Amino acid sequence: MKLYIGNQNYSSWSLRAWVIFAQNNLDVEVEKLTLFTPEFYQTLSEITPTAKVPTLVDSNVTTWDSLAILEYVNEQYLDGRCWPESPSERAKARALASEMHSGFMALRNELPMNCRARRHVELSESALADIQRIDAMWSEQMHLFPEQWLFGEWSIADAMYAPVALRFRTYGIKLSEPAQRYQEKVLSSAAILRWLAEASSESDIVSEDEAGVDVD
Amino acid sequence: MKLYIGNQNYSSWSLRAWVIFAQNNLDVEVEKLTLFTPEFYQTLSEITPTAKVPTLVDSNVTTWDSLAILEYVNEQYLDGRCWPESPSERAKARALASEMHSGFMALRNELPMNCRARRHVELSESALADIQRIDAMWSEQMHLFPEQWLFGEWSIADAMYAPVALRFRTYGIKLSEPAQRYQEKVLSSAAILRWLAEASSESDIVSEDEAGVDVD
Repeated sequence: MKLYIGNQNYSSWSLRAWVIFAQNNLDVEVEKLTLFTPEFYQTLSEITPTAKVPTLVDSNVTTWDSLAILEYVNEQYLDGRCWPESPSERAKARALASEMHSGFMALRNELPMNCRARRHVELSESALADIQRIDAMWSEQMHLFPEQWLFGEWSIADAMYAPVALRFRTYGIKLSEPAQRYQEKVLSSAAILRWLAEASSESDIVSEDEAGVDVD
Repeated sequence: MKLYIGNQNYSSWSLRAWVIFAQNNLDVEVEKLTLFTPEFYQTLSEITPTAKVPTLVDSNVTTWDSLAILEYVNEQYLDGRCWPESPSERAKARALASEMHSGFMALRNELPMNCRARRHVELSESALADIQRIDAMWSEQMHLFPEQWLFGEWSIADAMYAPVALRFRTYGIKLSEPAQRYQEKVLSSAAILRWLAEASSESDIVSEDEAGVDVD
């Protein structure tokens, strides 16, 4: 399998797909493309209709969306164990994952993932509401599964929210105590530490994803 | 099971979830709430964290996102048959469904679903690109599965694009011949005819979803 990703400093959608491999010690060849360069578009438009990352190529199967990649890898290589086993928990985990996939526009626009930066941003009401919703969601799951992942065992829901833990760190977003515990669990996981180490070797600046003013 | 939906004239997200029941003759109690009214928010905020439609309640399982509802109903009540059986086709179908779930913002903003209206709108470059992508996608699938649904048998991908067929009709969007054939298949299906009949009994105006100028 070959996974195409963007700059690890910036590409939150890439991280969602990458992390299922890292978290489950599943081999994949990673090809990193610098976002929005001619080479980026040329490489991806030869293999997908949308020229976006992440894209997974597994012999004759090409998948070009983060959630679809997560579902595919989970079904084909991980015996479905990256969704909770109970139907009610699985439905809830899918609702949380889909909520991230289709929503939180203000948060995504105003707090772009930027692993190496430490910034301050002025937030809109919509972005504050997004943060409040995620805080409530994480806190509720930490109440149900203390000291664990969102649904106990690591799941695709955790993949979908991993970039958010990094966004909150970059912009110094204050969370309630249970939500902060979950954020720390994500940030100290071996997979995310590896992502950050790889991101730290990059020096490209993608101006579209630079927001806020530097803080010490 | 009980499915909460919004106005059938306007609520494209509701249609996505509703249509899997109608298409598969699966019983569900439908509760229709008038979008953005106090009763809408009050009813939904008592059962979900996001107060959005569609929401499905199945005894102790509450699911509040269209794609998560589709996955849930497919797994629990339809033996998984609403995704293609072949892993490669299933991956592609999920990529198309997810592409709709997270994307096509310009199309969704500029061409709001409005079943009863016939309108003309001036479109941005982004909306035109969205239309072109969907035309190419539908055409490609009609080449692979002539005269059939996107992947031969009806699938969740068809649920996700059903509202688009209605948007294109409302705003008189011209499609290539194969894409138009798919649009006509959707619009003449028993499930969509039933949705339109139910929508036609509504008279509420939701001004947020009124775009363009009337045409004859």
